[in-house]
Amino acid sequence: MTEILHDPNFRGFASDNYAGAHPEVLDAIAQANGGHQVSYGADVYTAHLQEVFATHFGDGVEVFPVFNGTGANVTALQSMLPRWGAVISASTAHINVDEGGAPERVGGIKLLTVPSPDGKLTPELIDLEAWGWGDEHRAQPLVVSITQSTELGTLYSVDEVRTIADHAHAHGMTLHMDGARLANAAASLGVPLKAFTTDAGVDVLSFGGTKNGLLFGEAVVVLNPAASDGLIFLRKLNMQLASKLRFVSAQLIALLEGDLWLRSAQHANAMAARLRTSLEDLVDTGAVSGLGFSQPTQANAVFATLPRKSIEVLRERFHFYDWNAANNEVRWMCSFDTTEEDIDAFVDGIRAELATAAKASA
Amino acid sequence: MTEILHDPNFRGFASDNYAGAHPEVLDAIAQANGGHQVSYGADVYTAHLQEVFATHFGDGVEVFPVFNGTGANVTALQSMLPRWGAVISASTAHINVDEGGAPERVGGIKLLTVPSPDGKLTPELIDLEAWGWGDEHRAQPLVVSITQSTELGTLYSVDEVRTIADHAHAHGMTLHMDGARLANAAASLGVPLKAFTTDAGVDVLSFGGTKNGLLFGEAVVVLNPAASDGLIFLRKLNMQLASKLRFVSAQLIALLEGDLWLRSAQHANAMAARLRTSLEDLVDTGAVSGLGFSQPTQANAVFATLPRKSIEVLRERFHFYDWNAANNEVRWMCSFDTTEEDIDAFVDGIRAELATAAKASA
Amino acid sequence: MTEILHDPNFRGFASDNYAGAHPEVLDAIAQANGGHQVSYGADVYTAHLQEVFATHFGDGVEVFPVFNGTGANVTALQSMLPRWGAVISASTAHINVDEGGAPERVGGIKLLTVPSPDGKLTPELIDLEAWGWGDEHRAQPLVVSITQSTELGTLYSVDEVRTIADHAHAHGMTLHMDGARLANAAASLGVPLKAFTTDAGVDVLSFGGTKNGLLFGEAVVVLNPAASDGLIFLRKLNMQLASKLRFVSAQLIALLEGDLWLRSAQHANAMAARLRTSLEDLVDTGAVSGLGFSQPTQANAVFATLPRKSIEVLRERFHFYDWNAANNEVRWMCSFDTTEEDIDAFVDGIRAELATAAKASA
Amino acid sequence: MTEILHDPNFRGFASDNYAGAHPEVLDAIAQANGGHQVSYGADVYTAHLQEVFATHFGDGVEVFPVFNGTGANVTALQSMLPRWGAVISASTAHINVDEGGAPERVGGIKLLTVPSPDGKLTPELIDLEAWGWGDEHRAQPLVVSITQSTELGTLYSVDEVRTIADHAHAHGMTLHMDGARLANAAASLGVPLKAFTTDAGVDVLSFGGTKNGLLFGEAVVVLNPAASDGLIFLRKLNMQLASKLRFVSAQLIALLEGDLWLRSAQHANAMAARLRTSLEDLVDTGAVSGLGFSQPTQANAVFATLPRKSIEVLRERFHFYDWNAANNEVRWMCSFDTTEEDIDAFVDGIRAELATAAKASA
Repeated sequence: MTEILHDPNFRGFASDNYAGAHPEVLDAIAQANGGHQVSYGADVYTAHLQEVFATHFGDGVEVFPVFNGTGANVTALQSMLPRWGAVISASTAHINVDEGGAPERVGGIKLLTVPSPDGKLTPELIDLEAWGWGDEHRAQPLVVSITQSTELGTLYSVDEVRTIADHAHAHGMTLHMDGARLANAAASLGVPLKAFTTDAGVDVLSFGGTKNGLLFGEAVVVLNPAASDGLIFLRKLNMQLASKLRFVSAQLIALLEGDLWLRSAQHANAMAARLRTSLEDLVDTGAVSGLGFSQPTQANAVFATLPRKSIEVLRERFHFYDWNAANNEVRWMCSFDTTEEDIDAFVDGIRAELATAAKASA
Repeated sequence: MTEILHDPNFRGFASDNYAGAHPEVLDAIAQANGGHQVSYGADVYTAHLQEVFATHFGDGVEVFPVFNGTGANVTALQSMLPRWGAVISASTAHINVDEGGAPERVGGIKLLTVPSPDGKLTPELIDLEAWGWGDEHRAQPLVVSITQSTELGTLYSVDEVRTIADHAHAHGMTLHMDGARLANAAASLGVPLKAFTTDAGVDVLSFGGTKNGLLFGEAVVVLNPAASDGLIFLRKLNMQLASKLRFVSAQLIALLEGDLWLRSAQHANAMAARLRTSLEDLVDTGAVSGLGFSQPTQANAVFATLPRKSIEVLRERFHFYDWNAANNEVRWMCSFDTTEEDIDAFVDGIRAELATAAKASA
Repeated sequence: MTEILHDPNFRGFASDNYAGAHPEVLDAIAQANGGHQVSYGADVYTAHLQEVFATHFGDGVEVFPVFNGTGANVTALQSMLPRWGAVISASTAHINVDEGGAPERVGGIKLLTVPSPDGKLTPELIDLEAWGWGDEHRAQPLVVSITQSTELGTLYSVDEVRTIADHAHAHGMTLHMDGARLANAAASLGVPLKAFTTDAGVDVLSFGGTKNGLLFGEAVVVLNPAASDGLIFLRKLNMQLASKLRFVSAQLIALLEGDLWLRSAQHANAMAARLRTSLEDLVDTGAVSGLGFSQPTQANAVFATLPRKSIEVLRERFHFYDWNAANNEVRWMCSFDTTEEDIDAFVDGIRAELATAAKASA
Repeated sequence: MTEILHDPNFRGFASDNYAGAHPEVLDAIAQANGGHQVSYGADVYTAHLQEVFATHFGDGVEVFPVFNGTGANVTALQSMLPRWGAVISASTAHINVDEGGAPERVGGIKLLTVPSPDGKLTPELIDLEAWGWGDEHRAQPLVVSITQSTELGTLYSVDEVRTIADHAHAHGMTLHMDGARLANAAASLGVPLKAFTTDAGVDVLSFGGTKNGLLFGEAVVVLNPAASDGLIFLRKLNMQLASKLRFVSAQLIALLEGDLWLRSAQHANAMAARLRTSLEDLVDTGAVSGLGFSQPTQANAVFATLPRKSIEVLRERFHFYDWNAANNEVRWMCSFDTTEEDIDAFVDGIRAELATAAKASA
């Protein structure tokens, strides 16, 4: 039997994908194992998955399980665009800054990006790039892509999504949502998944599973079949089709058939809220100084600023990334398996370090 | 807990990816779970995997775990080629006929294909396309790609691989091996993996795990670092980088650290041999008629011809694909979990059906 | 003033693009010069060009002038295909062997090629690759591409084109014609351009100008608007849109408004026929030996075989290319400016060389 | 003979590509015509062109004539980048806003763009995107691309180019210059072409011919051979290789062998200066109101702001484009064939219209 090579006590706040898989997910894989199943998606788990997604997103939605989030995004966007199409997104969008150029290189997609202070688009921001239709010199803006919750840990309200969808549609564009953390958004908004996706006018969704406790696995979800074409072919040619697809589907079923998706997301959000609140209390009471917050905490992320030296000291023990090194901004992510003890130890650590730092600079 | 939706008694011969995962592989995933690990490959399992591959393929090899075989092939080939490069392969190669055009569309790679009766290339066949260097009108043939074992269930001997490698190198080309079923080849040849890869002159390898009992997971293995560039970037931009990479690596470790890879492959090969031998006996003794074999059985595949009507009757119960419908050629694959009972029932079924068919046509 | 650097007496048979531009074409450019015109196609020459093409190909056709033949082919094919589409062509097609992989690399197009002895497709040859629709593992065959006249100097009859078009359409595919030498085909068939294009069921055409006396310039011609989409965008993003497009259009008008296209093509064909006939006479009368013909001469090309040593001797003086070095096959092309004197000198040269060769080997 | 279809008295200020070809360029084409020349670049004009460029840019530079500016830019950049490379440019760069997404779609290139008030980059602006080397999630910034003169009609000084080149090189990046209007820059700077290209550290140049009086034709010029690879192949596969290349080369020779390039550029610049000065005089003397200038006039462009209604009235007669409709900014371009009469009539027209407008609003 393979040995345990890693230290299970290693914990961190770098990313929600530092966590492993939820035990219920591993159980689901074991259940789906044994015997033979038709490969490449003609299995009973993938068939059932369609029904499971229909309960969350409405009848008629179509689900295409894929390997990872970059694959979901690029494949979704290609299915929404002719070869000459472009996508309007925030400049902080994952598709723009964290996918190694996959949208451009694999997808042949031009991104028209706009700066956004909180990672969110608005009709006004969209209009900075929504023009030039019919002019062949300009890549044609035909899709708007938003992320929910955003890369900055912020949330679109149901109304905000609907406003963007209406705006996009009014200009002949369709709306893509990168939902790598969709469950966290639903948990925070306190509404069904459908409320801020299908019902709000989103056309195609990248549904995230990995960050919410799967081994791996995401899905392109077509909410409006008129807005997407050829996904069955695009998933394959984009190298995103698993042969033993039953195992991706079984994981997604485990997540979505019951309330695992919601429990896990609520927990991660609660841990981020605990972290934020605890630290704000310390700031408010004057127990620490030099700590600030650069974004609201609306899902499972805390964006903070603190002295460079303290960042480095804390990073050694608690493992997190700079978000913007230039202004000493860091990102702290909570996951489905972050514990209250993890948070409290981190808060203690921050308090102690900032106290030390304050003393040193005094 | 997720229910078992599938019928575990459903068995078939359609593909070695109809099987699920080996229990030892699931155990390895469970072992690697729990706690946090740095994502995207900076984890201890991925680090250890380098050592494991070194024991099989030699010091200095570099391993890049990816999601699937198409991803491994396209990423490997891109790393071996400038933008103007072309790949010489058999026309039956998986990269040519079964990847939805991914090499061309995602990789921007021109395939120069040559017909081959048994799925194998030879220097003579390679030379049909190995010409035109320096002529910008011709896509430049810079890589030869062979599959071991081939898509037709045949094998290159160690000497045959070496001859091809020498031939490729003599013409300034490098050699890629699609090893989706590399373990089956090693099991059949009875030599270490290194003997017909690194030691025989292969430069870059796509190592297959899924067909040999993983949930999912393959690896690009650079045997000759001078022949490959930029894999760390190409894997990401080709959407083949798993965030929780520890789970791909842990599976590959489970396969390769002990002898699971070999046991499983030997078993699959033995089942194919049992099927072939049993049927040949029936043919030789005159017990059945109308059954022929279109390729030698050198790994875990049997290619056979039989009457169309019998194909359809048998397919209902035993699940397999036409290989070439025009000449009633079918492919029967055995996997790590094919049992002797499976084989014997299939042989019985074939015997009975062909007897019925013979009677009907008499 | 720029000097004449070249030797105007240098003549050869290597390619119809060794010739320069027809004087009437240069006149047309001079006429279109002077003053300002809206760039990128909104000029009066490009507008008039639509009418000129309509007279040849029928009302409702749409013309998109481009720079070169590779650009015309790739842009035409992209406009006919979704991202998952493939093109069935002869393996000898220019798109397969002479475009540096542009269809695959720029177009993202998979070519499904079939060997053809004379460069022509037939329904039977097409059917070798026309299958697998709906199977995402297979690049989807959605366009058939034929070349008229072919790369081997052969011609499709009107009926042959119509049969292929009907066959393609019956299978849900559309038909592209690479007409780099379309005028030569029309001149040889003795029918209007429309007869074997629009009226025979061709959907999109690459119309060739350069080989028939333009400085440069081809056009994508949409004969069936339902079969093509987005050309205005594709031409630009494929870097095939000239800013001073009036000059491409004016050349094409010069070619097609009168009968220059036909005169030039008839002349080139006549020169090839003179060459073929003269040489056949020499063979028939026994004046030369060792000379054979590997393809019929139906347009402006002669494909011949002769001893390697004689090839090298003659090439020094008359400039031509090997077609297939392995079997000593060469290609001799005639152009709009090939003269009877050129032909007669070449025939004399061949006669003398073969006589010398025969004597030497006697 | 083809009729003159256009009105030679139609004049405008929309773009320097509304002009036709310089008579000396047409002469050069006529001189290069007649007889046969080896196609695809093995002709004497293309050979001589190398020498001509060497006189301007230094020994050892390599010239690859192409069709158009987009083709030059994409091909140049691809030759400088691995598949994972990205290009830092101003957000106003032609490659970002005016090429229909060709860099991304054809080139597979990610653009990392930074806003710039005057279309120019600086080390500080470059540093906004020059980071993240080695991180596979980030497209790797390996080339800086600047435009000289810029899309906003501004100029880099020799020192500014050198500073940027040094900065790029210090970070392991190379420098590309889009020289669609390079001659205008040289004319304005009053230095040889080499001074602000080769000698200032530019690695690869897109040299523009069309906007300076060619029918069509640009060139990729490799100033530093170590910074570029595979251009001979990339030009072909990017569909930028003219078969009758002698005619592109002959035009470029006509431009560059004597001083036509400089005379034409000086003239265009002088006309822009005349326009700017005349209008500034009117503003200064109070003869007109409502007219402003949004960029300095350093080459052949004037960027101005004026009331929307006057824009529309003047556009009818003098033909120009909005640059930024939102703030009533327009662009007026002068070309090699703009006359003093054109300018004076335009100035008169502007004066009259603004007077009318002022009266109306009074």
